[in-house]
Amino acid sequence: MSQQAVNGVSCRGKVLTVENMNPNVKRVEYAVRGPIVQRAVQIEKELREGVKKPFTEVIKANIGDAQAMGQRPITFFRQVLVLCSYPELLEDNKFPEDAKKRARRILDACGGHSIGAYSASQGIECIRQDVARYIERRDGGIPSNPDNIYLSTGASDAIVTILKLLVCGEGRDRTGVMISIPQYPLYSAALADLAAVQINYYLDEDNCWSLNVAELKRALNEAKQHCKPRVLCIINPGNPTGQVQSRQCIEDVIQFAKEEHLFLMADEVYQDNVYAEGCKFHSFKKVLFEMGPEYSSTVEMASFHSTSKCYMGECGFRGGYMEVINMDPEVKAQLTKLVSVRLCPPVPGQALLDLVVNPPQPDEPSYTLFTKERTAVLATLAEKARLTEEIFNEVPGITCNPVQGAMYTFPRITLPQKAIDKAKAEGKVPDMFYCMKLLEEEGICLVPGSGFGQKDGTFHFRMTILPPTEKLKVVLQKIRDFHLRFTNEFS
Amino acid sequence: MSQQAVNGVSCRGKVLTVENMNPNVKRVEYAVRGPIVQRAVQIEKELREGVKKPFTEVIKANIGDAQAMGQRPITFFRQVLVLCSYPELLEDNKFPEDAKKRARRILDACGGHSIGAYSASQGIECIRQDVARYIERRDGGIPSNPDNIYLSTGASDAIVTILKLLVCGEGRDRTGVMISIPQYPLYSAALADLAAVQINYYLDEDNCWSLNVAELKRALNEAKQHCKPRVLCIINPGNPTGQVQSRQCIEDVIQFAKEEHLFLMADEVYQDNVYAEGCKFHSFKKVLFEMGPEYSSTVEMASFHSTSKCYMGECGFRGGYMEVINMDPEVKAQLTKLVSVRLCPPVPGQALLDLVVNPPQPDEPSYTLFTKERTAVLATLAEKARLTEEIFNEVPGITCNPVQGAMYTFPRITLPQKAIDKAKAEGKVPDMFYCMKLLEEEGICLVPGSGFGQKDGTFHFRMTILPPTEKLKVVLQKIRDFHLRFTNEFS
Repeated sequence: MSQQAVNGVSCRGKVLTVENMNPNVKRVEYAVRGPIVQRAVQIEKELREGVKKPFTEVIKANIGDAQAMGQRPITFFRQVLVLCSYPELLEDNKFPEDAKKRARRILDACGGHSIGAYSASQGIECIRQDVARYIERRDGGIPSNPDNIYLSTGASDAIVTILKLLVCGEGRDRTGVMISIPQYPLYSAALADLAAVQINYYLDEDNCWSLNVAELKRALNEAKQHCKPRVLCIINPGNPTGQVQSRQCIEDVIQFAKEEHLFLMADEVYQDNVYAEGCKFHSFKKVLFEMGPEYSSTVEMASFHSTSKCYMGECGFRGGYMEVINMDPEVKAQLTKLVSVRLCPPVPGQALLDLVVNPPQPDEPSYTLFTKERTAVLATLAEKARLTEEIFNEVPGITCNPVQGAMYTFPRITLPQKAIDKAKAEGKVPDMFYCMKLLEEEGICLVPGSGFGQKDGTFHFRMTILPPTEKLKVVLQKIRDFHLRFTNEFS
Repeated sequence: MSQQAVNGVSCRGKVLTVENMNPNVKRVEYAVRGPIVQRAVQIEKELREGVKKPFTEVIKANIGDAQAMGQRPITFFRQVLVLCSYPELLEDNKFPEDAKKRARRILDACGGHSIGAYSASQGIECIRQDVARYIERRDGGIPSNPDNIYLSTGASDAIVTILKLLVCGEGRDRTGVMISIPQYPLYSAALADLAAVQINYYLDEDNCWSLNVAELKRALNEAKQHCKPRVLCIINPGNPTGQVQSRQCIEDVIQFAKEEHLFLMADEVYQDNVYAEGCKFHSFKKVLFEMGPEYSSTVEMASFHSTSKCYMGECGFRGGYMEVINMDPEVKAQLTKLVSVRLCPPVPGQALLDLVVNPPQPDEPSYTLFTKERTAVLATLAEKARLTEEIFNEVPGITCNPVQGAMYTFPRITLPQKAIDKAKAEGKVPDMFYCMKLLEEEGICLVPGSGFGQKDGTFHFRMTILPPTEKLKVVLQKIRDFHLRFTNEFS
């Protein structure tokens, strides 16, 4: 019997193979951590093992990971986290009173007064209240209901959850989801996983990556031929493109969503990252409410925020929230049920989020230091945004829109035909060929534009502006030199 | 145009309704945080608002949340976490040297030496190495490869990820997944979400909830008529049933999985929670390798562990790992890609996991305190396991298997026919009717057996053994009184 079984199994091979696994998973792609990053990790290992390279370190400008690039955490945030993790220190006079006050409040809201207990699945109640008050302050007093706030494991978690609620139907009735191109590949990955239909609308590179409603209409009308469009996703400020939407543009998008009966998903995780003069962050929620009850009482929306970006850059804690607006109460009950299966978002991330939405106030002891740290981070980012645009635009063959916000630049690169041919001969996408060569020769890790989507025949890369200023200058210099050399080599 | 659109929308109603949402999500159920828990939260609120009740507090014995029930965190673990969050304290002589050493090692492995940076998606490399060494020690030297370790956001995350890889096909070709009944409802919820086919195999209540292969065969053969069974899930020690599988039983299960060409999922999150005399935790991995290369080189398996249970009970940190064994390398590459979309598990949870798998050693300063705390928690749990069985079995109409391991008891309750009729008349499942009445009258929150699955015509509830001993005695007393009163009322 046993020998028979062995033969049986050996004929049948593995239970789980790449041929018989979930086909949706196979379709998932996530360039931000794709092959180029894997190669970068390998090169780092080779460097450690003493392999000679034309550089001594790999600079990873592929991912918005501020603290990995040397940004220091906000002192107040970490102080409160420490007090929450180890309440014995509440007696220690090393810690300021406002940090202790915040920690006590969070601990009082935790089961057994410990952040080691599960929280409510929707998130700790007093933190959801703080989030609602933060949103109200941000949006000039437009009310926010803590019952509409769901804390999450980073923003990604909440985005995937909302998409999951929305996707249904088969064939031509399958849910279509509109996403910008270029996009942040979490969206395409989640849509592949859910077998939803991805509807691409293109941002206008010639106009600072702006979004225009005519293009939304074009994309929607084409998509209606083969799926049921239900969702419109917007990233503002933009990732990977760094644009900041104007108030008028947001109003146009909301009107479009209403007319076309679309659920709006507003990814606003870079809401504090606005640098360009004349640009300002307008939340979709605020604009929606300013458009009057005809809109504010009908348009369904979810807005997402995270502790990973802005001035805090606490990616490792996986904190975040979403606010749902005009969601059908029965659907909300389903959402609450769905998030309960994963028990709760990480409680340290929830605590951190609480500090982001409830930072030190002018009359509190930590206010001065907090404000100084926050301002310094944002001022440095603004300076680096300017620097990046300026230096790239001096390079023949690189054109770069202003980095109005977020943490990325997405410059367009002109590649010689010979390079394109060489890439194709090697079975590589041309901008992957370019980025891989840059990595091998200069030790700089970027993400090819093809990982985010781009108009056919155009090539880009995404680079974060997060390396420290002096290192960023070196990176920009190296890319410039490489680009000229590359252009020369293939001309 | 705008008015038209308004009318249009008002005719069409919401974009997202409970009728047109993802039907898989609607099928998801998760009793551990279901309606009875929602009512418990409501009652707590009423108590705070001064509403008079026959009790002064709600005791939540519905969920394995040790610290919420007053269990104190392990001092060493929290010390290291604090040092990781706020490295300034590495200079503080309040903290022992071994805690500092662990913290430095973790920080050195973090981007920018900060737990605020993203980690590798599979988890921090040196922590995966520590996990592999832990597994090797646990399993008497059987090798474990850090490349096969994936850190996760609690065990739930990893379980859902593996199921996601495995589910495919349509109609009669749809993947079938075997789960025990009673089960932990994460499994049924994940299967509903993935639209996989749930194949129930029943544990043998008359034999301490043991698993027998004849029942596995019965369930499998029936399921083959309507789906493609590919996966066998085991929870050992058992949740909600508290049994600990014998070595022989594990061997039988592995042989069955091999013969029937099934992927094994071993949920081993309670591996330190074994109380009954003569019982011992045997990992599936160890038994697999002891069965010889015919098995150890062919049977595909994933084993799951978590920081939420055992002696540490750090649920809020959402730490965990899985080890995959004999997974096809191409599938593993797909798994690595899939987890990268969510960027990384929470880094504080990863750090905590590192301490669980690499605790203080006999020659280190924290060893004595650590061992004392660990032993005390496990000894108290063992005492409460014994007490629970003893007291329940004294009550006419309640029968209770020994709590050999895990954190739960799943006693069977005899309900009078009149009560069953009354429940049905109210549209309630009888054991939900019972538990809801218990909650209203005594303030004790349990989960009805129907939330986990049970043989038709039998009724149970799940209760955790986590309340402090004196409170547990009160709980057991109150349930006894309630049960007698209930039986009386409906006789």
